[in-house]
Amino acid sequence: MAKQNIYDNEVFFKEYSKLREREVNANNLFELPTLFSLMPDLKDKRILDLGCGTGERCIDYLNLGASKVTGIDISENMLAVAMSKNSNPNITYINMPMEDLDSIDEEFDVVISSLALHYVEDFTGVVKNVYRLLSDGGIFLFSQEHPLATCYSGNGDRWTRDENGRKLHVNIANYCVEKRNDSTWFVEGVQRYHRMFSTIVNTLADSGFRILKMTEPYPTEELVHKYPEYYDLYHKPDFLFVKAVKQ
Amino acid sequence: MAKQNIYDNEVFFKEYSKLREREVNANNLFELPTLFSLMPDLKDKRILDLGCGTGERCIDYLNLGASKVTGIDISENMLAVAMSKNSNPNITYINMPMEDLDSIDEEFDVVISSLALHYVEDFTGVVKNVYRLLSDGGIFLFSQEHPLATCYSGNGDRWTRDENGRKLHVNIANYCVEKRNDSTWFVEGVQRYHRMFSTIVNTLADSGFRILKMTEPYPTEELVHKYPEYYDLYHKPDFLFVKAVKQ
Repeated sequence: MAKQNIYDNEVFFKEYSKLREREVNANNLFELPTLFSLMPDLKDKRILDLGCGTGERCIDYLNLGASKVTGIDISENMLAVAMSKNSNPNITYINMPMEDLDSIDEEFDVVISSLALHYVEDFTGVVKNVYRLLSDGGIFLFSQEHPLATCYSGNGDRWTRDENGRKLHVNIANYCVEKRNDSTWFVEGVQRYHRMFSTIVNTLADSGFRILKMTEPYPTEELVHKYPEYYDLYHKPDFLFVKAVKQ
Repeated sequence: MAKQNIYDNEVFFKEYSKLREREVNANNLFELPTLFSLMPDLKDKRILDLGCGTGERCIDYLNLGASKVTGIDISENMLAVAMSKNSNPNITYINMPMEDLDSIDEEFDVVISSLALHYVEDFTGVVKNVYRLLSDGGIFLFSQEHPLATCYSGNGDRWTRDENGRKLHVNIANYCVEKRNDSTWFVEGVQRYHRMFSTIVNTLADSGFRILKMTEPYPTEELVHKYPEYYDLYHKPDFLFVKAVKQ
């Protein structure tokens, strides 16, 4: 299976960049606040960012006190932006897929990955490498698409709606069938790998991690009042976060 | 909130007893084999069975080498059967709800609960007590209704079907709304508490448990060939198992 490099698709990259510029999106409202709410103390820590994209988070980690940050990403497009907009003497950007972590031999205190692991087929391989690269007591914090999202395959509507188009419930099929479920997100055929909750938990446990926290973010009542469209997240969260420690 | 004692409802108990007598049911095909596949070594261990029902499992645990078994259950009906059919000098049956574990002060090596925890409102309270009652390195192994099952509330059909009545997908709504979702199972109003995956994981982690294994059983291809109706479990598993260790 070829490693996916969708961020170097021209149409995808243009549309993705526009999305990220919007102030109100699921990333700004849910993904980023949750990521930082779970963040361990980064003071003087060595950070590895898996799927660092355009490097905004690498700068954030330095601002939180990290001594050095290594950001890896499969996409040359994303790293070109990172190097022009978010370069720093204490950040190293490396153009490589996270499936190739075998080639890195360096110790880190915290490994972070924001919304990238669902693109990876060999989750076990990545988790084993993260464990190897972490210092004792080191933290692995990641977000990925939620299993109730990745179990959906195809380009149709995954929602059942009422006559006014209001979403009533999400249609879940084959949650227990773990496979690549491509989605359409700006372009067709964005590769995504579905894994059950138990597979994610067991891969971490079997590799030696102790799970400290799992988060499935959903909006507050206040936020739903302001942006009613996000009520859908009560039916199907977009994201899953896991924070684990090497013991 | 009153603790539920549905097993002392006469209609429920009669229908439930009939169900358990059938050779082919979800318990015999999935719940029991998974429970025993996750079972730690019970040789010379002291076992606490939360929601022991009619005591068949207590006998099984003795047969697996346990030195003593304490079974608690809220239902007098169930315990009357246990005491007449499954009594043993090394088994103690106590009629009490597992919400009242505070009153027990005794050490156990393994705490097991089969399909009972979804009836309990105060999951945190039970988990804290299990942690307190376990010896160091002790194991907590439980099964419960799967979160994709408990998030369903009401008595209608949770499935979307084709014109021939074949189940196409399960309708999931309000997965993130944690509350009591009563179901109809022989009788109306069987109290069940829905908790998200993250709540279950965090309650264990926050209480000091390390999760060793999570299992969401689904049928093998061979089994689906024999009993096609169980294909539905690929869409929505019935059960969730967690095995955790006190560290």
